[in-house]
Formats: sequence, structure tokens, C-alpha cells
Amino acid sequence: MIVPGFRFAAGAAGIKKAGGLDLALMVAAAPCAAAGVFTRNRVKAAPVLLSRERLRAGKAQAILVNSGNANACTGPGGLADAREASRGVAELLQVPERLVLPASTGVIGQPLPLDRVLAALPGLVSRLHPAGLPEVAQAIMTTDTRPKTAFLKEKIGGREVTVAGMAKGAGMIHPDLATLLVFIVSDAAATPRVLKTLLRSALTKSFHRITVDGDTSTNDTILLLAGGRAGIPTIKDEGRDMAALGETLTQVMADLAGQVVADGEGARHIFRVEVAGAATPGEALKAARTVALSPLVKTAMAGQDVNWGRIMAALGRSGARFDPERVEIAYGDAPVVVKGQGLGLKAEAAAQKVIQAGSFTLTIHLHAGEAADYYDTCDLTEDYIRINASYRS
Amino acid sequence: MIVPGFRFAAGAAGIKKAGGLDLALMVAAAPCAAAGVFTRNRVKAAPVLLSRERLRAGKAQAILVNSGNANACTGPGGLADAREASRGVAELLQVPERLVLPASTGVIGQPLPLDRVLAALPGLVSRLHPAGLPEVAQAIMTTDTRPKTAFLKEKIGGREVTVAGMAKGAGMIHPDLATLLVFIVSDAAATPRVLKTLLRSALTKSFHRITVDGDTSTNDTILLLAGGRAGIPTIKDEGRDMAALGETLTQVMADLAGQVVADGEGARHIFRVEVAGAATPGEALKAARTVALSPLVKTAMAGQDVNWGRIMAALGRSGARFDPERVEIAYGDAPVVVKGQGLGLKAEAAAQKVIQAGSFTLTIHLHAGEAADYYDTCDLTEDYIRINASYRS
Repeated sequence: MIVPGFRFAAGAAGIKKAGGLDLALMVAAAPCAAAGVFTRNRVKAAPVLLSRERLRAGKAQAILVNSGNANACTGPGGLADAREASRGVAELLQVPERLVLPASTGVIGQPLPLDRVLAALPGLVSRLHPAGLPEVAQAIMTTDTRPKTAFLKEKIGGREVTVAGMAKGAGMIHPDLATLLVFIVSDAAATPRVLKTLLRSALTKSFHRITVDGDTSTNDTILLLAGGRAGIPTIKDEGRDMAALGETLTQVMADLAGQVVADGEGARHIFRVEVAGAATPGEALKAARTVALSPLVKTAMAGQDVNWGRIMAALGRSGARFDPERVEIAYGDAPVVVKGQGLGLKAEAAAQKVIQAGSFTLTIHLHAGEAADYYDTCDLTEDYIRINASYRS
Repeated sequence: MIVPGFRFAAGAAGIKKAGGLDLALMVAAAPCAAAGVFTRNRVKAAPVLLSRERLRAGKAQAILVNSGNANACTGPGGLADAREASRGVAELLQVPERLVLPASTGVIGQPLPLDRVLAALPGLVSRLHPAGLPEVAQAIMTTDTRPKTAFLKEKIGGREVTVAGMAKGAGMIHPDLATLLVFIVSDAAATPRVLKTLLRSALTKSFHRITVDGDTSTNDTILLLAGGRAGIPTIKDEGRDMAALGETLTQVMADLAGQVVADGEGARHIFRVEVAGAATPGEALKAARTVALSPLVKTAMAGQDVNWGRIMAALGRSGARFDPERVEIAYGDAPVVVKGQGLGLKAEAAAQKVIQAGSFTLTIHLHAGEAADYYDTCDLTEDYIRINASYRS
């Protein structure tokens, strides 16, 4: 999982109460074109404020990320801590401080143990190596049960271009849960503006279809760095190369988003809610989203219960316009509702087999128009409660 | 718990798989002024459609309610079933069919076992008696662990007026969960228009501050019947009597709403989210509501974890405008956040004691204006999942 021009390292700085990897560094050999997307939450963590500010220039060379502490709701001191930590990195790497982007995830409202971060930096820098991406993916985990990485090589601009990414996030059962961190690095060459356009577009096929959207945590951060080592001409405008890079980026991000849902806190069943026949694209998304987020639908899936009435009820309050007497619902290939009414116990038994497979698509046709959209989600289990009731203890 | 002019009966018609009381009847001695509020869900159960239509005339004499089957998503057949059942009641009672209001709660999408309902009606009618209200409260339960009734006598219009009510609903942890049924009967005398005004006003101090609101199930129904047996002059306009009746109604409904929250599925901690200092009343409600509905906040309460960072994160995505650096948060009398920052472990230990008491108020000051509002809710526990994953089995 090598991306030419990038090195990585992770370490245990003692930020996490339980110990383990909790600090990581990603460094490019030279300043990169960069783009980012941050939480829209009114309460923004210190590293979010700082990285967002620094990214205005469209350049970055290093990302410093810690888990175990969100450095959010920590006031001016928290901002100073984020600055100090990035300064420490800048000095060791001999790069301008403004090219270092901090990111944090963990408990809100506790001061970042800056001394421990600074003490761990020299070791981290000394261990930087090209194959270290998987370690970083490990170090940014909180309630995640496994690291999430994706890696793709594609012919773009006449050369082989690499796009690699990692994501952190597991409390994805409802959009207000947990922090999402996504870091993508590439040896492509493109302007910051192109990167921003591609990043936003890829989001609508990946993380914006699982959870982030308007509802975000204090720390959500998605960063994309392109270092140019692949040797392709810098992508500046729309065209075949930009489309190809966008496609590759989308694949990597969709792969990561899928891994995040699959690692949803306590998840045992993964499903995609596909809505067709909506009156408008906005209503298609609203309908898919409302069903995908309904605790009643999600608990029914946990119980492997073909309780399609809860799907109807969720559709009914979604704001999408439709005639209830025309709705169709199917679990995978097994239809259970036609013209708004159930097909009976035999149909439900077939649908239950689909749920039991553990990963499936729930298809809904509203017969109110031509628009379609989808949302990926997972079931809501007792383990989810267990994880979140005891998160800080 | 006698309301002059009303009789009640409950029975076991075999609608619930597990057996037990599942059919109930409330009958007034003469046609009553009546008002109702129904689900805003686009998918409406057959009895909702029928009762809403019949209530347009502002008159009713009987309420027939069953649990175990929602008669929702049952198409024209479901509507015919609701009609047939109410016709059966009308014939036995010798009242016009249009004065019988049906209501249902239970599983969606299965045909109402009409034969069983009709077969049970004669016995039900023969058992009607003035003291039967508590039995009805029992018969309308689904996942409720206890019946919910409220009863109040007040001097209004120079006489003693009785207002009694019952509610059903326990899946109140999130507004899209479960059906809410509320029936209020009184011997007051008022026009249907006055009743409607009073009912809507009382809702904003009761069920609209716990869950119903715009997010509703297919079956939510709130009915108010006033039979006039108290012998007061009919309340037709605003004035002292209307205010007094409104106050009494509000007290009864707030009492019922509190019981519903306290019986929230799996609830172990009950809390009120009080928001002050919001820029507008709408933002105060949005902020209170977002915190009260946040699964992360609710699971933290289940774990007795003073995780105020989750409260900040919920406020931040609520849409309310505020400066994070001015926010104050207290659990009961124990402040934990001042000027957006935590007061430390000692303060949190005091707040944890407040949570442990089991019932408390979470006070939030946004320092962005003068508006205030509140929302009552309960924690989110593993029992909630257990109840909802296995609801139909």
C-alpha cells in the first residue's frame, strides 16, 4: 500500500486511557495540492478550526492525527494546543507550520495532553516510512473494531496513478454519532480547486450516503492530498483526466464508506435502502434517509423481522410525496408489499431469508415520479447501546 | 374514577397473539361535543381516516379501540373493516354509526380479525359500567408496562367538572416510534370549536413536548369528548370558564405525557431538557428537541455518564444559533459547563449523582437571546432494542 511521495508513522503517546496506538503522522515529500471537507456542526473542535483555516490556501504537507481526545469544547487553550502540536511537527520536519493539518477524535471537553503529544513526535518522525499507511489507519480508531483502508491504481494522464485512503468511524448508526475521519493521499497532480470539486462529488456517492451530511460531529474531517509524484500533467480543468481521477477517488471513498457501515457499532446486518419512483431527487434522498435512520426499522432488522409496516410508517413521515396505495417494497429479490399492501406470510418468510444473509438491499418504489437515490446503513443492536453507554468508562 | 355520563368496558377478543385484553369501548349517555388530533403521517391507518372524517361534525358518542392490530396499510379492506366494526357498535348501542370513532394500535399491515371483533362486541356492550375506565387503559396497551390514567375534578362554571384521560404509548424514545393513543372524557359542556382550541393548546404543554409533533406513527390519535353532565353552561367563547377547562385539560394531559415518558421502552432514567437563552422560541424548541432525541446523549444517560460533550455536539447540529464559548450546562443543580468549557471531574461527579437519582432536569443556557422551551425524554437502553427487535415475534 505504497503511495509514491508519502511516508507514514503511528505511535502510542498515552492519550488513550486504555493505551495503544493513538498518534499518527502522514507526510508528503513536498507541499501538496490539498482539499478538505469539515463538520458543519456549530461546535467545531480546535483542530477543525485550525485545519480549515490553513486549507484555504489549498496546500498541505503533513497531517497529524490523534485518537482518544477530540480537543473539542476546550476553548482558546485547545486551539493553542492544536497549534503547538502542529508547530512541533513543523519544526521536526522543517516544513512551514501552516502546511501541517491537525485532526483529532475521542472524548469531547478534556484538554489534549499536549506534553505527551510533543514527547512522542520525535519518535514518530524517526519512524516515518512509505509502507506505514495501515498503522495510521489503526492509530485513528476509537470504537472501530477494525482499521479501514482502500487502495487503487489507475491509468490516468498516461501514467499509473495511486489513490489510497483510510477512514475512522463506527458510530454510524445515526448521523449525529461519532466522529468520521477520512484521509486520502495520491500521487496524482491536480489543482486544489480540482481536488475540492472531485472530493465533493465523491462524497455524494460515499460518505454523504451513509451518514455525514448536515448532521455531523464536532470533529468530522475529510482531507485529500495530491503530491504529484506520478508524473502526470497537473489536472487543471474538466476533461478525461479529471473524470478518471474523480472515478478513482469515488471508488476509494465508496469502498471506505462501505467499510464504515459494515463496522457500525454493534452492527450485525448491513443494508442499502434504495428508493425509486420519487417525485424529486430531494424526496428520493429524504425517503431513503428516513427509512435508513429509523430506529424502528433498524431494530426490526436486528431481530430479522420483516416488519415492513415500520418502513411504510417511516416513508409516511419522510416528507416525500406518494400515494400509500401504490408503494412497493422488496427485501432483495423478495417482494413483500405491492400496491401498499402486504403479500402475506410466505412472502415475508422469503424476505426473512434475505435479512438473514446479513447484507442486502431494501428496494422501495413510490410510483410518484422518476427520481431515485439510496442510503447505506446497518441494524441497531443491543451492542450499540453497550458501546455508547460505557464509552468514557 | 367516575366521569358522569360515561361508561366503559374492556374485553379479550383474541386480536393479540399472546391473548389478554385487546378490545375496549367507551360510551357516552348522549351525543357529545368532540375534538380530535390525528397523525400527520402520510400513511394513515384506516381507523384514523374514518374517525377524522366523522369528527368533522364535532360530535361523537362512542370510541371503539383495539390493540394488537393497527389496521394500517390494509387498503380498502381495512377501511371496510373499521366501518363494519363501528357499525356493529352502533347497532348494539342504537346510536348513529357516524358517532362511533374507531382507533387501533398494534402491528401494521395485517388485516383486522373483524369476525373476532364483532363476536366480542355484545359481551363488551353488556359489561359497560361507569367505573370501567382503568380496564380500558389496560386494554389499549401494547409494549406499555403499565396503564396510564389521569383524573381531575375542578370547579368550573360554578360546578364540579371532571376530566379523566388515559394514554397508551411507550415507544417514545424517538418520535417515530410506536403509536400514541390518548382518550379524554369530561362532563364539561363546550362547543366542538372550543374543545379543539383547548386540545391543541394543551398538546403544546404535554404530548408535543415529548414526542408526537410532526413525526408521528400511522395510528396516533387523541380524542376529547365532553358530554355536559356536569350541568354547567356550554362554554362557547374565551373567558374564565374556558381558561379553567383548558388548565384542567392541560394538567390531565401533562400528567399522562409524563407517564408515557416514564414508561418509555426500556427507560431507566427520565429527564427534562430545558433550554434557555435561545435567540427565538423556535430555536429553543429545536435545541431542546435535538438534545432530547440524540441517541448519543440518551445512551450516555443510560450509562450514567456525564458526557456533556455529546450535549454540545447535539446543540451544535440543532440549527439553533449560539456562541459555543458562552454555553452553560447543568445536571439538576450541578453545573458542568460554563463558557463552553468543562468544570472538571469534581463537577462531573456531582452531576453523576443527579443522573443516578433517576429523574432530573438538564438545564442548558445558550446566552443568545431570551427564548426558552423544554422537552421530556428518557434514556436509551439495551432493553429498548430487545423490545423492538422482537416486537412481532
